[in-house]
Amino acid sequence: MATKPKGRAGTIKEPVITLSAGPVATYPAVQRAFAAPVQYDFDPWFQDFYEQVAKKAAKAMRVRQPALILQVEPAPGIEATAASLISSNDVVLNLASGVYGKGFGYWSARYHKEMVEIEVPFNEAIDPAAVKAAFKKRPDIKVVSLVHHDTPSGTINPAKEIGKIVRDHDALLIVDAVSSFAGMDIHPDDCYADVFITGPGKCLGGAPGLTLMAVNDRAWKHIKKNKKAPFASVLSLTDWKDAWSKEKPFPFTPSVAEINGLDAALDLYLAEGPENVWHRHALTAKATRAGIKAMGLALWAKTEAIASPTCTAVRVPDGVKDSDIIATARAQYGVVFSSGRDQTKGKLIRIGHMGPVAEPIYATVAVTAFGGALRKLGKKVDVGAGVEAALAVIAGGK
Amino acid sequence: MATKPKGRAGTIKEPVITLSAGPVATYPAVQRAFAAPVQYDFDPWFQDFYEQVAKKAAKAMRVRQPALILQVEPAPGIEATAASLISSNDVVLNLASGVYGKGFGYWSARYHKEMVEIEVPFNEAIDPAAVKAAFKKRPDIKVVSLVHHDTPSGTINPAKEIGKIVRDHDALLIVDAVSSFAGMDIHPDDCYADVFITGPGKCLGGAPGLTLMAVNDRAWKHIKKNKKAPFASVLSLTDWKDAWSKEKPFPFTPSVAEINGLDAALDLYLAEGPENVWHRHALTAKATRAGIKAMGLALWAKTEAIASPTCTAVRVPDGVKDSDIIATARAQYGVVFSSGRDQTKGKLIRIGHMGPVAEPIYATVAVTAFGGALRKLGKKVDVGAGVEAALAVIAGGK
Amino acid sequence: MATKPKGRAGTIKEPVITLSAGPVATYPAVQRAFAAPVQYDFDPWFQDFYEQVAKKAAKAMRVRQPALILQVEPAPGIEATAASLISSNDVVLNLASGVYGKGFGYWSARYHKEMVEIEVPFNEAIDPAAVKAAFKKRPDIKVVSLVHHDTPSGTINPAKEIGKIVRDHDALLIVDAVSSFAGMDIHPDDCYADVFITGPGKCLGGAPGLTLMAVNDRAWKHIKKNKKAPFASVLSLTDWKDAWSKEKPFPFTPSVAEINGLDAALDLYLAEGPENVWHRHALTAKATRAGIKAMGLALWAKTEAIASPTCTAVRVPDGVKDSDIIATARAQYGVVFSSGRDQTKGKLIRIGHMGPVAEPIYATVAVTAFGGALRKLGKKVDVGAGVEAALAVIAGGK
Amino acid sequence: MATKPKGRAGTIKEPVITLSAGPVATYPAVQRAFAAPVQYDFDPWFQDFYEQVAKKAAKAMRVRQPALILQVEPAPGIEATAASLISSNDVVLNLASGVYGKGFGYWSARYHKEMVEIEVPFNEAIDPAAVKAAFKKRPDIKVVSLVHHDTPSGTINPAKEIGKIVRDHDALLIVDAVSSFAGMDIHPDDCYADVFITGPGKCLGGAPGLTLMAVNDRAWKHIKKNKKAPFASVLSLTDWKDAWSKEKPFPFTPSVAEINGLDAALDLYLAEGPENVWHRHALTAKATRAGIKAMGLALWAKTEAIASPTCTAVRVPDGVKDSDIIATARAQYGVVFSSGRDQTKGKLIRIGHMGPVAEPIYATVAVTAFGGALRKLGKKVDVGAGVEAALAVIAGGK
Repeated sequence: MATKPKGRAGTIKEPVITLSAGPVATYPAVQRAFAAPVQYDFDPWFQDFYEQVAKKAAKAMRVRQPALILQVEPAPGIEATAASLISSNDVVLNLASGVYGKGFGYWSARYHKEMVEIEVPFNEAIDPAAVKAAFKKRPDIKVVSLVHHDTPSGTINPAKEIGKIVRDHDALLIVDAVSSFAGMDIHPDDCYADVFITGPGKCLGGAPGLTLMAVNDRAWKHIKKNKKAPFASVLSLTDWKDAWSKEKPFPFTPSVAEINGLDAALDLYLAEGPENVWHRHALTAKATRAGIKAMGLALWAKTEAIASPTCTAVRVPDGVKDSDIIATARAQYGVVFSSGRDQTKGKLIRIGHMGPVAEPIYATVAVTAFGGALRKLGKKVDVGAGVEAALAVIAGGK
Repeated sequence: MATKPKGRAGTIKEPVITLSAGPVATYPAVQRAFAAPVQYDFDPWFQDFYEQVAKKAAKAMRVRQPALILQVEPAPGIEATAASLISSNDVVLNLASGVYGKGFGYWSARYHKEMVEIEVPFNEAIDPAAVKAAFKKRPDIKVVSLVHHDTPSGTINPAKEIGKIVRDHDALLIVDAVSSFAGMDIHPDDCYADVFITGPGKCLGGAPGLTLMAVNDRAWKHIKKNKKAPFASVLSLTDWKDAWSKEKPFPFTPSVAEINGLDAALDLYLAEGPENVWHRHALTAKATRAGIKAMGLALWAKTEAIASPTCTAVRVPDGVKDSDIIATARAQYGVVFSSGRDQTKGKLIRIGHMGPVAEPIYATVAVTAFGGALRKLGKKVDVGAGVEAALAVIAGGK
Repeated sequence: MATKPKGRAGTIKEPVITLSAGPVATYPAVQRAFAAPVQYDFDPWFQDFYEQVAKKAAKAMRVRQPALILQVEPAPGIEATAASLISSNDVVLNLASGVYGKGFGYWSARYHKEMVEIEVPFNEAIDPAAVKAAFKKRPDIKVVSLVHHDTPSGTINPAKEIGKIVRDHDALLIVDAVSSFAGMDIHPDDCYADVFITGPGKCLGGAPGLTLMAVNDRAWKHIKKNKKAPFASVLSLTDWKDAWSKEKPFPFTPSVAEINGLDAALDLYLAEGPENVWHRHALTAKATRAGIKAMGLALWAKTEAIASPTCTAVRVPDGVKDSDIIATARAQYGVVFSSGRDQTKGKLIRIGHMGPVAEPIYATVAVTAFGGALRKLGKKVDVGAGVEAALAVIAGGK
Repeated sequence: MATKPKGRAGTIKEPVITLSAGPVATYPAVQRAFAAPVQYDFDPWFQDFYEQVAKKAAKAMRVRQPALILQVEPAPGIEATAASLISSNDVVLNLASGVYGKGFGYWSARYHKEMVEIEVPFNEAIDPAAVKAAFKKRPDIKVVSLVHHDTPSGTINPAKEIGKIVRDHDALLIVDAVSSFAGMDIHPDDCYADVFITGPGKCLGGAPGLTLMAVNDRAWKHIKKNKKAPFASVLSLTDWKDAWSKEKPFPFTPSVAEINGLDAALDLYLAEGPENVWHRHALTAKATRAGIKAMGLALWAKTEAIASPTCTAVRVPDGVKDSDIIATARAQYGVVFSSGRDQTKGKLIRIGHMGPVAEPIYATVAVTAFGGALRKLGKKVDVGAGVEAALAVIAGGK
């Protein structure tokens, strides 16, 4: 069978179309930016460039303070947030509607005094009323953690409503918006996030390897008070607090090539217009859901209202294995899907709509490859009906 | 509406998926190769590199003599062939089954003594028997010109059979295989081509800007005898005859970046295995044709046997305009098709299956976008049936 | 010995620093632009992009009409100019101060009625008074051809003065500014050029493969009258006259990747500021000349006033061969120089100062590598003095 | 003033030549590799690719076990090593001959039971006899930490001799070879390193953002016994232990683009031949040192024998400030040098010879720009003599 391009390791044929939940296919302009010279981090050019990128990221996040950029992908970025923000005096409210939400509790446990948890089935969303109730019961809650889009479930939590409640109770809110930001209308201030965490490798269509954060003064104040907050450490937010400024040195070497790529991803997002970008994410997801349902398959999300516009989770039908669907779609069509993670593993398959593949035509690709793979595995599915349903949504245009 | 990435001129959104008849989407590895440093053409490194690329192109064409590379895209490459090969003593047999075949006659007319032409309707192929008959009538035919794949019609001529006849009559054969080579089983020697012309911008998935030729000794001998064959000219084949050799200077500056890209395109083709490459071109075309027919549309080619595996021409249905179909597919789905050219303009639409989009999943994309566009324009088409038919072919795998 | 990077043909080590007379080292941003997707030339995005690039090139050339872009490097571009502009009624005045100037006469001879030639030794420049005298003697001169920078000599002709004389006599002027434009202050209108020819592969720091032209109405009028002006040909200017417009089709496929690269090269030139770009070319050349002279070597140009700011030609000292100097500098330092061409071959060596290497530090590199190579070949040269002299110029800053 | 290329943030002109101590200028082939598509980390293609890259890194390090790749640049990679390897039962011997060596002690202090330190002036190297003596005094030393090339001093420690002693005493050895590996003959096994740490952003000519490690079974055994060794953490080595295998999942998302770049950097290193690479690093450093001394300047290293072949530290002459030298070389020549760090800051300037600039011609560039800057600042330096001395070394060829 066909093999690798010369000059690149790997003996398997690269995919044709990647519809993963991330890392996602990158925009061509991002790839070109990655090819830029790696400039010396202490040179004034790079120090100025970094400041401008941090400001551009802030512009995209619609905050005034230049973005805090950590030189790690968002998972360790979130770990660093837990390490830096949560002190041994803090009662934490962990909101768990999925694998990532649940997982934050384990990091939190290393640092907090006590944790209160609201957990819902992993195909549901957190109810703001439950958050309100939790505060009533435990007014000493100091830090709340919320995953906006719990990617392993493809579900969205009502961050804006929850954020309002948290702020009203004067607690600090961490929002993991890694796979929702830039694919839908979510920003630090509109959800009252004190620490807002995202990255370039999802809806921005960039590469993984950095964490973009907006940390407000309330959070910095709390971090400052935290005697055990890491410093001189990859887990430290403090180390990088002022690193955006061209006047300040970097605590360790920034990932220069990643910054080059981020710059381009932000340019694309701002130039296209965030509303336009969100629209094509939403339309692609809606068309995908219509197609999936028309083939007689079930969405994972309990209600379509909480289904993510950036990733569609499909319940694995009885009698087939998730890994067989993924392998078959890959082998027959070169199309890549994502499986679930941990508790959702085996139960759902995820179709990403992030960055360059958040384009309606890919909804029909997804439906075709998903349905075609199921048929190959012996399931009766009406792929034609699926494509027609997706097309009807696309024709509607919203 | 969405706009251009910063740093690149253009105010229109770039397409999502290009299924054109060429220039085609390039392989990512070709794009990276284009980013290589532009080395000085007189430096030993580049002279050696050029020789190796010329030899690699010969390997791909399955000839022994290093390829003749002209620093122009194939249209002027063919013009240069006419100018160099055809002398004022030559009777030319022009085989016209399409716009490009017909067009060669006009170039020929500048140089030949007399022209005999076999012309068939532009949805048919040349009959080898007619060629045989022409030689019987005019045994003084010296040069024969054949377009293997007349791209504006998406039809294939029986080059191997015709080539045998031409050689048997000791005439010289020019074969334009620009848009068939590397997408199907066609090489200079198996069709007895004395001058075989192709380029990197079609099935090789490279960029336009070069002509790749295999010119055999019979042809060089004829060119040498042609007193009016151009020299010190962009129309000269002779100037570039020995330029492949690292020991010989270039007559004018080669297009260094294009050579960088060509090198990568050839590497990919040879590494994947030509047979594998042809197979995915053929399967994609077959699936596309099945889908098109299942939607009740007609192929342009009179018989499916002559439909090209690298480009599917679809007859424009009554009551709609080709330009509206193309514009609608572009606007709704970001999918790009090609119109016809000259005499086929307005009558057909072309769906390219060349290079990186010669992958079966793109057959379903083509069918979906084509059908969806027609429906938007008020035609009743069963897109679902089209996709199903395409899937059935893909599932069959051949 | 060290060998090639995997994935790129070639068995010789690539140079470290290229100081050639062109093709030159390209700017990194140009290389990245070359990696952009190759869009379909009939797609509205590309048609719009092409128009914008043609307008950007016009802006750089300081003319109003979008640039005429030919899809060939400048040598065939000049051939096409001769073919298109010069009719069999035309008396041509050919100004030959070097190999390229002399060479134009051979192309002209294919088309003109008669040629008058002013030839000076190839280390001198054309005297405007001689041009005036020629017109006095032959008032029927219709077309004048001038090479502004005769690259094989590294000398500059007084284009502005000569242009004024030509215009005053109502003749048409062709100016070859291929290797001077964008490296010094020369534009079509300030030298009264009716056809001004340049390209991206020299001082713009782009790749070879395109010709950029400014053709004014006087020239187009003359071409229109020329019954033998080529059409449907790579030698035709007419074919491409309106191709800049997004409303007009291309006569044949443009070199899409080259247009991508050109766009970036023009952006860089305009963003840096032409005056800044010219300044660093001039300063680098001046420092180089100072260093060369301080080592006891002789410039090729008869007077320093006519030495090009984009290329320094150095007389080959007695007792050594040009090819040995070039090979030694390459082997010891990885530094690439250019030899002469034809009549200047063996007599001089050229050090390019074009595009990214038009930076003063490269003057010291050139002096060091040139002097070091000579010493290796047994000549006594004071390299230290050469570097000091170059540094003194750089310190002066102009 | 010259400005930024469009499409890239930053308002300062990018440097012309970067001779930093890292991040260093990257090889063009690495930059192209960075432009490759970002593939999904769970796709079989990427899992296979990652395994191959890990094996290629092992080949470069001359160990059998696939390399441990951490998705952070080496500083946090070293922090993670301290966190994972050093337990609260361990007595650590910290060898401090520079800023980085000294700094390790602070990380160690978070985890160890007790630390013994051998500190020498920061322009000297650790004496193996002192290590032997330390073991004699404290046979309970369990972990030894050594920086092979303490970059802020540009000095090399005798890792092979020290390693032998450590192994003889059955302690574990951490070797930080970040800025020496791939620029000279140093590998895990020849210095008895149990944990060997390097990265792509120095002598490999790649980008920062990854840590490459060779961890042997002795070290893994110790980590396994360390109850407090981090897991589910960016500080964990254990998490990534088996991630090289295509059969094993990644603990968090790897930096896909960085892996693409690393692959190319390793290819280049292995294709050129390590011995060839080391040779040009050594020759460039030697020529630089000769030039610096000939200008009457002093090397920072107490003896030239311990001066690094990958970075030359020059003592800042009296009466000038390091930052002025750096700024002047940048402004006049576009040449970038590095300052010292912490205790060496202000006292020395570093000239990097790593990756693509480890070419002898850059020794003359360094000498010229360094000397030229000093002269501009009012110091009398004989730049000519400096260049001559460098040339003499280059001519000698070793």
